[in-house]
Amino acid sequence: MTNKQENRGKMKAKLYGIGTGPGDPELLTIKAVKAIEKCAVIAVPTHSGEDRTAYSIIEPYAMGKEILECEFAMSKDMDERVQARLVAAGRIMDCLDSGKDVGFITLGDSTTYSTYMYVHEIVVAKGYEAEVIPGVTSYAAAAAALGTALCAGDEMLMVIPARHSLDTEALLDFPGNKVLMKSGANLLKVLDELKARGLSLNTQIVSRATMEGQRLYRSIAEFEADPDTGYFTVAIVKEDKQ
Amino acid sequence: MTNKQENRGKMKAKLYGIGTGPGDPELLTIKAVKAIEKCAVIAVPTHSGEDRTAYSIIEPYAMGKEILECEFAMSKDMDERVQARLVAAGRIMDCLDSGKDVGFITLGDSTTYSTYMYVHEIVVAKGYEAEVIPGVTSYAAAAAALGTALCAGDEMLMVIPARHSLDTEALLDFPGNKVLMKSGANLLKVLDELKARGLSLNTQIVSRATMEGQRLYRSIAEFEADPDTGYFTVAIVKEDKQ
Repeated sequence: MTNKQENRGKMKAKLYGIGTGPGDPELLTIKAVKAIEKCAVIAVPTHSGEDRTAYSIIEPYAMGKEILECEFAMSKDMDERVQARLVAAGRIMDCLDSGKDVGFITLGDSTTYSTYMYVHEIVVAKGYEAEVIPGVTSYAAAAAALGTALCAGDEMLMVIPARHSLDTEALLDFPGNKVLMKSGANLLKVLDELKARGLSLNTQIVSRATMEGQRLYRSIAEFEADPDTGYFTVAIVKEDKQ
Repeated sequence: MTNKQENRGKMKAKLYGIGTGPGDPELLTIKAVKAIEKCAVIAVPTHSGEDRTAYSIIEPYAMGKEILECEFAMSKDMDERVQARLVAAGRIMDCLDSGKDVGFITLGDSTTYSTYMYVHEIVVAKGYEAEVIPGVTSYAAAAAALGTALCAGDEMLMVIPARHSLDTEALLDFPGNKVLMKSGANLLKVLDELKARGLSLNTQIVSRATMEGQRLYRSIAEFEADPDTGYFTVAIVKEDKQ
């Protein structure tokens, strides 16, 4: 064991997994702001288009701090992905070992489809202190922008990443209101299924909720006339049209 | 039409539906704090045990403001419930007509099982301006407290209020990770079903997430040894134990 490894887990520095909310900097929580201000190092995941968004949200609080870019392989090879997480966790533990608190930022909520939780598990298993700070999800922000409830009364809510391996038809047969996320171009296929089920008017779509360039679509027809099938597009499908 | 009714919708005062987050005052968003500070009137729903919690979260920002208690019938009679919403919306519109901005507070996220959205629809239909401010949900806070992901990769997430009319077995047969909310004593029945399915170690439970008296249970056995089956107890069931 090297000296460095022996020290691992024995310092008092702490890791924070910080949900930045969906995009509007005012949707940061007070807890997130305080954690960022406390951290000497801000870890920024750089695995997709979203990283710059998360960083831009917290930038006003990150002046003069050390920025640690953590690259996460989006490879289909699971070994590569696991390896990238171990490398990122190792670099974060190096910062913790030198006594620096680290704030790992993640767009939306840190427990919802976030890279952070992989790192959290590795770092906690090594004996370090780590705290998860939840945030506002993009789909709650989308519902708020539309002025519609995600779920009410005894309705269920199903959150579906549209890259899910089950086929679209099966997904849509489950009961409850649905949030379709991370669909990209696949969303158009899902919308066809929704139309075939008579759910055209039960479906509303938001792209870039609370970010610059937010767009609201009140129906599938409205979306199809000028679709934004980017990564930040969320569809909300209600069981009962209200 | 009375003079008051004619004026409805013509004033510039605005209604805000404000998610206060799950309990920890630091999980308020900056946007929520700013909206509360701007409002002359704070509307507090008084339909369950939760109201005092939502108010206690925002109390430091509500000093000197007018408090409008809105009673929502929890009756099984839908007419009574609709009537209570209309009365609450009417009182809120009276405030708006007198030029006062109103902040309607709601525990957790304002689009998730919230009374606010009923009032929102009525008030918007009358031509008033209203804005929904999303918040951190109790179930994201529960996952964060446990240090576990709600969903990762292509996992689906199903949020189930345990008073749902479908039977428990059917609910648990749906794919995806599950959040069981608002179960009360019914949770023990659901946990029996989970045990029968071999999901005992896939289930973690949090009561009063981020509130005073928060408790974490890492397994069903731990919960059953000293259960808190209150309104604020949330169970998180993972497809794959991690």
